[in-house]
Amino acid sequence: MKRNKRDILERLNAGEVIVGDGGMVLQLERRGYVKAGHWTPEAAVQNPEAVRQLHREFLRAGADVLQTFTFYCSDDKLELSGNVTNITGAQINEAACDLAREVADEGNALVAGCVSQTPCYLSNRNETEVKSLFKKQMDEFLKKDIDFFIAEFFRYAEEAAWAVQVLKTSGKTVGATLCISPHGDMNGLPPGECAVHLVKAGADIVGVNCHLDPTACIQTVKLMKEGLDKAGLKGHLMIQPLGCQTPECNLTGYISLPEYPFALECRTLTRWDVHKYAREAYDAGIRYIGGCCGFEAYHIRAISEELRAERGFLPPASEKHGLWGAGLELHTKPWVRARAQREYWENLLPASGRPKCPSMATPADE
Amino acid sequence: MKRNKRDILERLNAGEVIVGDGGMVLQLERRGYVKAGHWTPEAAVQNPEAVRQLHREFLRAGADVLQTFTFYCSDDKLELSGNVTNITGAQINEAACDLAREVADEGNALVAGCVSQTPCYLSNRNETEVKSLFKKQMDEFLKKDIDFFIAEFFRYAEEAAWAVQVLKTSGKTVGATLCISPHGDMNGLPPGECAVHLVKAGADIVGVNCHLDPTACIQTVKLMKEGLDKAGLKGHLMIQPLGCQTPECNLTGYISLPEYPFALECRTLTRWDVHKYAREAYDAGIRYIGGCCGFEAYHIRAISEELRAERGFLPPASEKHGLWGAGLELHTKPWVRARAQREYWENLLPASGRPKCPSMATPADE
Amino acid sequence: MKRNKRDILERLNAGEVIVGDGGMVLQLERRGYVKAGHWTPEAAVQNPEAVRQLHREFLRAGADVLQTFTFYCSDDKLELSGNVTNITGAQINEAACDLAREVADEGNALVAGCVSQTPCYLSNRNETEVKSLFKKQMDEFLKKDIDFFIAEFFRYAEEAAWAVQVLKTSGKTVGATLCISPHGDMNGLPPGECAVHLVKAGADIVGVNCHLDPTACIQTVKLMKEGLDKAGLKGHLMIQPLGCQTPECNLTGYISLPEYPFALECRTLTRWDVHKYAREAYDAGIRYIGGCCGFEAYHIRAISEELRAERGFLPPASEKHGLWGAGLELHTKPWVRARAQREYWENLLPASGRPKCPSMATPADE
Amino acid sequence: MKRNKRDILERLNAGEVIVGDGGMVLQLERRGYVKAGHWTPEAAVQNPEAVRQLHREFLRAGADVLQTFTFYCSDDKLELSGNVTNITGAQINEAACDLAREVADEGNALVAGCVSQTPCYLSNRNETEVKSLFKKQMDEFLKKDIDFFIAEFFRYAEEAAWAVQVLKTSGKTVGATLCISPHGDMNGLPPGECAVHLVKAGADIVGVNCHLDPTACIQTVKLMKEGLDKAGLKGHLMIQPLGCQTPECNLTGYISLPEYPFALECRTLTRWDVHKYAREAYDAGIRYIGGCCGFEAYHIRAISEELRAERGFLPPASEKHGLWGAGLELHTKPWVRARAQREYWENLLPASGRPKCPSMATPADE
Repeated sequence: MKRNKRDILERLNAGEVIVGDGGMVLQLERRGYVKAGHWTPEAAVQNPEAVRQLHREFLRAGADVLQTFTFYCSDDKLELSGNVTNITGAQINEAACDLAREVADEGNALVAGCVSQTPCYLSNRNETEVKSLFKKQMDEFLKKDIDFFIAEFFRYAEEAAWAVQVLKTSGKTVGATLCISPHGDMNGLPPGECAVHLVKAGADIVGVNCHLDPTACIQTVKLMKEGLDKAGLKGHLMIQPLGCQTPECNLTGYISLPEYPFALECRTLTRWDVHKYAREAYDAGIRYIGGCCGFEAYHIRAISEELRAERGFLPPASEKHGLWGAGLELHTKPWVRARAQREYWENLLPASGRPKCPSMATPADE
Repeated sequence: MKRNKRDILERLNAGEVIVGDGGMVLQLERRGYVKAGHWTPEAAVQNPEAVRQLHREFLRAGADVLQTFTFYCSDDKLELSGNVTNITGAQINEAACDLAREVADEGNALVAGCVSQTPCYLSNRNETEVKSLFKKQMDEFLKKDIDFFIAEFFRYAEEAAWAVQVLKTSGKTVGATLCISPHGDMNGLPPGECAVHLVKAGADIVGVNCHLDPTACIQTVKLMKEGLDKAGLKGHLMIQPLGCQTPECNLTGYISLPEYPFALECRTLTRWDVHKYAREAYDAGIRYIGGCCGFEAYHIRAISEELRAERGFLPPASEKHGLWGAGLELHTKPWVRARAQREYWENLLPASGRPKCPSMATPADE
Repeated sequence: MKRNKRDILERLNAGEVIVGDGGMVLQLERRGYVKAGHWTPEAAVQNPEAVRQLHREFLRAGADVLQTFTFYCSDDKLELSGNVTNITGAQINEAACDLAREVADEGNALVAGCVSQTPCYLSNRNETEVKSLFKKQMDEFLKKDIDFFIAEFFRYAEEAAWAVQVLKTSGKTVGATLCISPHGDMNGLPPGECAVHLVKAGADIVGVNCHLDPTACIQTVKLMKEGLDKAGLKGHLMIQPLGCQTPECNLTGYISLPEYPFALECRTLTRWDVHKYAREAYDAGIRYIGGCCGFEAYHIRAISEELRAERGFLPPASEKHGLWGAGLELHTKPWVRARAQREYWENLLPASGRPKCPSMATPADE
Repeated sequence: MKRNKRDILERLNAGEVIVGDGGMVLQLERRGYVKAGHWTPEAAVQNPEAVRQLHREFLRAGADVLQTFTFYCSDDKLELSGNVTNITGAQINEAACDLAREVADEGNALVAGCVSQTPCYLSNRNETEVKSLFKKQMDEFLKKDIDFFIAEFFRYAEEAAWAVQVLKTSGKTVGATLCISPHGDMNGLPPGECAVHLVKAGADIVGVNCHLDPTACIQTVKLMKEGLDKAGLKGHLMIQPLGCQTPECNLTGYISLPEYPFALECRTLTRWDVHKYAREAYDAGIRYIGGCCGFEAYHIRAISEELRAERGFLPPASEKHGLWGAGLELHTKPWVRARAQREYWENLLPASGRPKCPSMATPADE
């Protein structure tokens, strides 16, 4: 049995780079197992083989953490969605823990039990109610073999802090990521203050996920770091950005783009974009580096490959990938062989193949 | 047991629309199981769970045919590639047949045993040698439960015709697709004459696959149809185009694009592009409509959804997909709810999010 | 007095490169003297100083020929337009001849009296009526000091041939340019046959003008040349393309672009585009090389500068222009100084500064 | 004689909208009279007819002010440039005044004597020397019939203030515009403080010119207004932006764009962009609205047409321009006639016709 005994905090404290996993819901939507608009994770019960396989791809790409496929799996959200009627939230949460654990144990990965923002918070901001939703999910996770918790995809630092407070009662490590822009959370709280709020609530790791591209997310995490530094607080930094280019996005992120959610293909990051991202995130002092919606296995592998020197190893999936395109060296066309080098891919400006389309859209919240 | 007793030819003769599957190698490269530059299918032996899952996604999306994952699996290609040393071509071919059969039987799909162009042809054009390679693959397929054959991804009609001649000795139905542009094959043979050549060699179904986008491929198949009509020949038509926009491509297709193979993301078709493609292919009289590299499960689902009236049913994966974005109707943001309609997606011109990139590249073969 | 005694034909026969002038109507529209939609040349009477100055700029840029500002100045067109009521066509034609002559004599230029397509042809195709319109214009020109004639901007080779037949009765040299695409004239007559038709009608110089960009126009003139060669006919070649990029245009040219006529700025050629054009036109054997709508003085200067070795001199306006940007050598910013070289400008891919705009439009005649 | 007796200040105080003129040097470079890199105005002596004609176009387009063509006409700049050897700065300054006066008197325009930044300031920041250069130019202007002064194109508020102090000794009205971005001047002084500094130095009108597009310039003038309001100071506001789209520019403006100065065509404003600009400038409280480099006569006419209700009249050049494209109503093609309306042009997203070019560049100062 290969279980790594050292937990996430030990490893971060030791200065290790932790590679996160990629996005589950968007990818499983494309594979046919998640319904867009609902984005609920009933596939953990209905199609476990599909969830298991996606976990496995991330593991193979070098992910040190597999997040349970429990996005939007609070009871209020499931009820509101109405997408599943014969399965309970408890069933999904428990099945998701088993799936993540099973695959994590095929390698060396940790399992993070994940909670996310609740409709309840938006409708009444009742702390007791919201916390009881998180408590229920946590209790379901704790029936299973979970290594630590992540509270992710929160638009409001306040709600995220409530989640952190609940999850910390387990005694386990807790990470918290907001889906916010450099402008701050939806209450206008700047990133630096958000980070302080989360650390004070007990978060061991703080950062951002989803909603915006790597460039914007790195900027936001830097502001979080500045906030923590100013406040004299310690906290590990974490980043799991969108796998799409969103240069024109504002507060509400890619949801305000006209292409959301069914025409985002043109914006997808290449693996080379991810190399750049991973390096910049590392240079910004972030040590938990993963992805969210749009990050597929090959994007996670690109993080692992960019940071192979820092981590000391390549992931299993690199057996099927020549670094910087080296696998093209034996192509029959000389012009393709010429692409088997870092300089080529780093400098390429990829064309969209869509001359009647623009390169930027007008966000709906502008 | 749900096995459909009617074979592919019966169904095409009856005027049914056959939905093909999507691309395996490009997608499995991204998932970490195929090495770019080599593009060989050893994953059928090494990672059967990954191949099985991808087959399953296509089945779920409505594919009537699952193609064996045996691309480039002729012995000469495997040797040249040097990518696998401890597995034989026979092992891969046989394992691939079993995987396709296993998943096909979970639904109602047919299994097509697939052969593709050989390095041998390129180096010596020796008919005996080339045919013996196809014969060996065919014999391996025939040990398993295969419904029909497809000879695909041929740049030269001559080599494809040799493959057809070999495969027809099995007594089974044979389809043949060339990866050519409207300009014709690499010998300069126009599409119409290519089609005539293939039908005369025994092909029951002819068409194109890979290398160029739906627009170009439909144009090529139309020229094939004209050629057959002029020659007074009968042949069913088949199309499995690239899942990328390639408006500027010439003879050698997307391989000549600077973005090939690691920066094609921006060119990826949306599901709405596929609706348009499926309709145009149908209107052109093509009845076997699928995809090649870049076509993921949701693209195949889009073919099934566009042609739901003609086929009389929706695929399983449509349970997780509102037609034309209907699943967005319950979104919290009014501007996202407004996207839950056909008109919105049909008229959207998706932005690339890359203002420093062009919209067309200069192909290397220009 | 500097009048060059050698006429246009002598010079072309001697192998000289003749630089044409640029576009009058589009430029004078921008300067405030021509009304878009009408495009009639009443400014020759109403604002002679403006017409004179534009002639002068072209002369200074190296133009060997100044075309009279008599576009659309047939009586039927003037009447239909209704743009001028107190001035006759005769007045405009005569004033325009005087203006061109006056400026031509400030340098070494020839004056070409110009006629263009008539509404009369479109409405009734009556040869007698159409020819009488051209005859009247010609007679007005012949009252003045005109060196030769150009029949330009004809969509139909037939009408252009009628103009040529009339103008040849003067005994003077006649050039004829069609505003057609490589697909041929509006009757579907291919460029090669158009050229043969015009030469047989008496044209000494044939070619194309307006409507399409240099790339398309060069292609059309090449087809004209092939037609003449096949027919064993002699004729000098002439080209005066649009000063805009129109890669997506079909038969009706830039008029079908959504940007016509008030948003063509983004498509304007740079001087470096013109260098490339002039070289390609020269290499195609064309020896009368100018421009039409969109060609300003600096574009004409770029033709003169590209072909300075072939012509043996630079034009007066080059006193105010360092070749290939040499004038930037003394700029205070080092990065601007670095642009003072040919390689920089030849390889630049100029950005539009409009990220929300596409790079190609859909022509209205598609 | 039509001379308007009311001076600029009277008119601004009365709430009138003053339309400025467009750019001289860039336009005269294209016409063949100014050398790029030098940008000096010797054409006022060498080619008065060219300068006169350009003044006339602006007058005809509705300009209420003609600026003397005296850009970079301080003695230190002329010497450094070395572009003219047989003409003195005094000769140019005096000739330029005469030209502007002559044309202004053909209509109703005022003449502004203009000074601009000096190399002397950049090299030694010696107040005495710099002021003596301005004093010399002013004295030359005062020999002629000048209505007021403009100090324009200053990167440093300090130098501009010195110019203002000198020019105010004449007793005449003085306007001052900086070529700065919303980030402030090159010393880092924010726009609000720059405006305060200039008004305190005696400027009656303050604002920005050149270097950045209308969007950026309006933003900068708004910040200037806020600064004046906060300081309790009064000052009329003036804006003369670049006639190019520069969304990606930073501190040093369009000079840092790769396209500067010979490939800016694609970025040129359309007349409809100018309508939008004029309205936004007016709404921001700016009452002196003109243009700088890239603003041709038709752009100035667009300002006049957009603000025709506020001004109470249309300019002479509007005789040759149907409002919002009305002149297209009689076009023979129905699809062109359909463009004769405001909605069409306001919503058009003009294509660049350059699919291999990007929509944004990387500024050299980034």
